[in-house]
Amino acid sequence: MSQSDTGRAMDPQALAEASAAAMYKEDKASQGLGMVVDSVAPGAATLRMTVRADMVNGHGTCHGGFIFALADSCFAFACNSHNRVTVAQSASIDFLAPARLGDALIASATELALGGRTGVYDIVVRRQDGLRIALFRGNSYRVQGSLVPETEL
Amino acid sequence: MSQSDTGRAMDPQALAEASAAAMYKEDKASQGLGMVVDSVAPGAATLRMTVRADMVNGHGTCHGGFIFALADSCFAFACNSHNRVTVAQSASIDFLAPARLGDALIASATELALGGRTGVYDIVVRRQDGLRIALFRGNSYRVQGSLVPETEL
Amino acid sequence: MSQSDTGRAMDPQALAEASAAAMYKEDKASQGLGMVVDSVAPGAATLRMTVRADMVNGHGTCHGGFIFALADSCFAFACNSHNRVTVAQSASIDFLAPARLGDALIASATELALGGRTGVYDIVVRRQDGLRIALFRGNSYRVQGSLVPETEL
Amino acid sequence: MSQSDTGRAMDPQALAEASAAAMYKEDKASQGLGMVVDSVAPGAATLRMTVRADMVNGHGTCHGGFIFALADSCFAFACNSHNRVTVAQSASIDFLAPARLGDALIASATELALGGRTGVYDIVVRRQDGLRIALFRGNSYRVQGSLVPETEL
Repeated sequence: MSQSDTGRAMDPQALAEASAAAMYKEDKASQGLGMVVDSVAPGAATLRMTVRADMVNGHGTCHGGFIFALADSCFAFACNSHNRVTVAQSASIDFLAPARLGDALIASATELALGGRTGVYDIVVRRQDGLRIALFRGNSYRVQGSLVPETEL
Repeated sequence: MSQSDTGRAMDPQALAEASAAAMYKEDKASQGLGMVVDSVAPGAATLRMTVRADMVNGHGTCHGGFIFALADSCFAFACNSHNRVTVAQSASIDFLAPARLGDALIASATELALGGRTGVYDIVVRRQDGLRIALFRGNSYRVQGSLVPETEL
Repeated sequence: MSQSDTGRAMDPQALAEASAAAMYKEDKASQGLGMVVDSVAPGAATLRMTVRADMVNGHGTCHGGFIFALADSCFAFACNSHNRVTVAQSASIDFLAPARLGDALIASATELALGGRTGVYDIVVRRQDGLRIALFRGNSYRVQGSLVPETEL
Repeated sequence: MSQSDTGRAMDPQALAEASAAAMYKEDKASQGLGMVVDSVAPGAATLRMTVRADMVNGHGTCHGGFIFALADSCFAFACNSHNRVTVAQSASIDFLAPARLGDALIASATELALGGRTGVYDIVVRRQDGLRIALFRGNSYRVQGSLVPETEL
């Protein structure tokens, strides 16, 4: 957290963006699923993903695992936005409506609590027309380390 | 549930196996993730999946979404084993240990409760050496329809 | 749902208030814990309860069961506000901060989803000063019956 | 954890029993609800409670808050059995069948995972005849301190 002699401490928004960029670069799984990070902010993130043919069953309904994966990535970007390495400890999901082939899903994360090493986040997954597809609540746990240096030249 | 004049009613184990075969054939998502159904029985299922390069981040750790997907498929095979079309209503997952590139994950589902239209299932995801990777608890909801005809010629 | 010849159908707010009054009268448990219904509306409810000496341990911290009970009652008033008898199927709770002897706790319920026989509700439990004590998410299941006749003379 | 010169380190079972005795003495809430600790062991506990008139609604059905409270106390005894002060971070509960006035409920806790500061426990609440009333899964978080000195004279 200390500011170096040669650098200027990043503000929280710059830190959230730098953390997200560092995470996304390494996250081949989210990339491979076609997820795009629309925005990040301290404690928040918005991601989108289109339901592909390899994500659906024979009736064109998206497998719940891919809806969870989008919400889980969104959760990860939000809970790592403070540049402290943080992992998912547990999560729950309610499936409200099916998603279908070609649907553009948008997940938005909100930080409900952050104290000590743990946090609670809500992620809502919506369809392009706003219909809520799933509600996800995640519990995070901070481990050692940071994602990016906290100063810039 | 009534037995036709021309057929013999399947026993519960035969029905579980026929339901699983019908489901798996249509489930391009589980197939695409390389999931294999090891066994099914009334209220139970065991599936396996190997962690691939497209499931991990830059550090070789499996994205939680794929661990959830394996557990969720296992849950689906178990809760549809009675040949009544049943969907995931909600689920929770505890992540106990990371899975890594090349790990062979094995998920096993147990039916804890089934009454009216709803059921509760526990799914344990283990690594090839038996280490528990994740604990999943799913709530199912029975909708209309069956997976296969309940008689055979 | 049909309107009788002799009565006027209640509007949704009147129905919510009548349902709550009918429930509260029978709910000796919520009464015994000193819960007060501040307000109800379609899909919503606000209840309050003061932490008593018989709700705390030796260190003056409220037992989690009583915080859950307040949230669970609030959930029940919200999910029965449409005058369809509805029960708690499952719930999860995150404990954010301890409540102490004498704290006035306020629970507020919001309906996130309602479709078919099932619904999802969020309940936030706050302390008198607004500090969030617990987050509760409940899954409801509608059974047979109504709480009050839907017409009034 | 170090053994003093003058004492003998307690074995894990003795430590579980001493921790439970220290907790129960201070826990006026569990006492007030009539809970009895049947047994404790490292990572495990069994508690019982009879459904009283002040725990039921007008139809004689136990309020979910009291079922949760029994499970939550059982969870607390199990996760504190290692003599490290541990609190409930979150929990989920599935209500399987109603409990009624006069039912003797028995809760049994099992430790599913314990690593670092966090643990996962399953608690099953049964009726006197063995019928499962509720399934509870709790996430624990270890804080500072111990319940009893770890040596005896």
